[in-house]
Amino acid sequence: MEHPENNPEYAGLTVNSGVAPVSNINPYLKRGRFVRKQLSASDYVEGILNGNVTILGQAVTLVESTIPAHQQVAQEVIEKCLPYSGKSIRVGISGVPRAGKSTSIDEFGIHLLREKGGKLAVLAIDPSSERTKGSILGDKTRMEKLSVHPDSFIRPSPSAGSLGGVARKTRETIILCEAAGFDKILVETVGVGQSETACHSMVDFFLLIQLAGTGDELQGIKRGIMEMADGIVINKCDGNNVDKCQLAATQFRNALHLFPMPESGWLPQVLTYSGFYGYGIREIWEMVYQYVDFVKANGYFEHRRNEQSKYWMYESIREQLQGSFFHNPTIADMLVAEERAVLAGQRTSFVAAKQLLDAYFALLR
Amino acid sequence: MEHPENNPEYAGLTVNSGVAPVSNINPYLKRGRFVRKQLSASDYVEGILNGNVTILGQAVTLVESTIPAHQQVAQEVIEKCLPYSGKSIRVGISGVPRAGKSTSIDEFGIHLLREKGGKLAVLAIDPSSERTKGSILGDKTRMEKLSVHPDSFIRPSPSAGSLGGVARKTRETIILCEAAGFDKILVETVGVGQSETACHSMVDFFLLIQLAGTGDELQGIKRGIMEMADGIVINKCDGNNVDKCQLAATQFRNALHLFPMPESGWLPQVLTYSGFYGYGIREIWEMVYQYVDFVKANGYFEHRRNEQSKYWMYESIREQLQGSFFHNPTIADMLVAEERAVLAGQRTSFVAAKQLLDAYFALLR
Repeated sequence: MEHPENNPEYAGLTVNSGVAPVSNINPYLKRGRFVRKQLSASDYVEGILNGNVTILGQAVTLVESTIPAHQQVAQEVIEKCLPYSGKSIRVGISGVPRAGKSTSIDEFGIHLLREKGGKLAVLAIDPSSERTKGSILGDKTRMEKLSVHPDSFIRPSPSAGSLGGVARKTRETIILCEAAGFDKILVETVGVGQSETACHSMVDFFLLIQLAGTGDELQGIKRGIMEMADGIVINKCDGNNVDKCQLAATQFRNALHLFPMPESGWLPQVLTYSGFYGYGIREIWEMVYQYVDFVKANGYFEHRRNEQSKYWMYESIREQLQGSFFHNPTIADMLVAEERAVLAGQRTSFVAAKQLLDAYFALLR
Repeated sequence: MEHPENNPEYAGLTVNSGVAPVSNINPYLKRGRFVRKQLSASDYVEGILNGNVTILGQAVTLVESTIPAHQQVAQEVIEKCLPYSGKSIRVGISGVPRAGKSTSIDEFGIHLLREKGGKLAVLAIDPSSERTKGSILGDKTRMEKLSVHPDSFIRPSPSAGSLGGVARKTRETIILCEAAGFDKILVETVGVGQSETACHSMVDFFLLIQLAGTGDELQGIKRGIMEMADGIVINKCDGNNVDKCQLAATQFRNALHLFPMPESGWLPQVLTYSGFYGYGIREIWEMVYQYVDFVKANGYFEHRRNEQSKYWMYESIREQLQGSFFHNPTIADMLVAEERAVLAGQRTSFVAAKQLLDAYFALLR
């Protein structure tokens, strides 16, 4: 049976096809109930360009589908939307679990729509996510203000899979959202693993949510992430916690001075806020817009987007080359033995690699 | 004409072959001058295991040679030395140019040999290095005390090439040095590019040399390097500079607290020293040995070495898979056009990658 996730029908409301069922052999009548007309790539593109969020949702479901026929339509839709994409501000948001990411994004988004207008899409990269109907609702419920806002579009992370696959789908979804007129994109990611690098590689501004204190909270942040941040914001700066947060902000500011200046020429800023009470959120967006003006003026904005496009082309090549190698059953078997020999000190890492590569290329011939 | 770099004869003094030339057809008489006997793999291994540094030097030259016949012998030598390797402490040392790395390594090495005895090899990873006779002498001259010490072996970075190639040769040289009884290995690297990651991935302790001040010196350090360090040492802590260095040390210590605890469970230490006057060097080695005791006790020492062996196997596979793809002339031509299409917004990064991969696998068949 087809998994509901791969069926575009489940993505949203029924689209009026303009065709009524006339008989039992009507192709749109399936499993005894009325089924809407399958949309063509042009239908999707037209709907997306008209800003129809139902069709946008269905198109994203196609993008996320692993069924070849869906993928074919999806790629055609993406290609046709590509010329209409790119005209948004893309902001990545990361932070450890319990940093209050969802509440913060809800507040950030509502503030942004109120002050700047336009339309906001909230996407996610989380390769570990087991997406079910439940967690979609869960995500939307956690963003209780945005989820009912008419100008927002919330989409949880694509289903669990390789990071490359999940990242690709999110990047393609950005294209569709932009073509549908969403001029503000937030990409949420979790504070662990390689997801941050992927997220950082598709946004214009990377915001890191931290908490005050050097306790366990910080231990969940992967090494290297702090250096990716264009801005660090410390949540829960309210009540008794204000002094502690301001001290933490000073510590982060001092620490950032020890790092080399980022390529953007922008010294990352450190701010405090309260997602729960909504304090300090105006300043966060002022920082983001100040950054965007700064890097648009010095050419880095365009440069970063171009580098990202190249990055994903090369990254996709690397991932698929490696996939072809490591998923080859003969190689996978050999790999176990070679790794054991290397660890036992019977063979150098390089000789083991060479034997595996020789075998692989012989298999391809 | 054969490049001198690829000729093992140039690596050191002549080895007495025990065979005298008897006639013009004597195979050891070549180009009108006396040439020593070509050593067999067993000869090299025997010499290395006896601690003969001349033969060690020649074997390293073989390892660095790109001539297939040399590589074949080199791999046999390495394989036979492998069971005798691994019994050293390997310390990586990085820092920006002008941080005083060479003077520091000279002092570090002399101190270590005086206090702990044993034998010390100093190797390097610098893929940008254009190795010539001149710079070999240059390196040795810069380490003026170590270069004349009977228990030291100094070898500059292998010739310019891919980082993977350079790193591989350095890693193989470590094996030969250890088999020759060198129980202390220092691997120097420059403060830019990916060389630090490569160096970090072959040592037990990664030491980062910093300077006080937030001026231009620090801008040369690549982002992410500070988080690799097991210890940070601030040079030039002498004369008027002492207060500034101690302030910098405090700042680094505070900054390190903002990072997650490393997997080793060891909180990186920050010390000050003066390479020129030789102050504070005892404390640096005490830190290194304290670290080694700590990670040997908690099992991380063995774990890190195993992870490194696996890392280099996988890294070598990745590098060669990509080399096969990107060095393919048809693909290289296509790549230019695809990259242009991606940057012009005519094609997504993923579609471009797919077209290239399809072409590549068709070519291999």
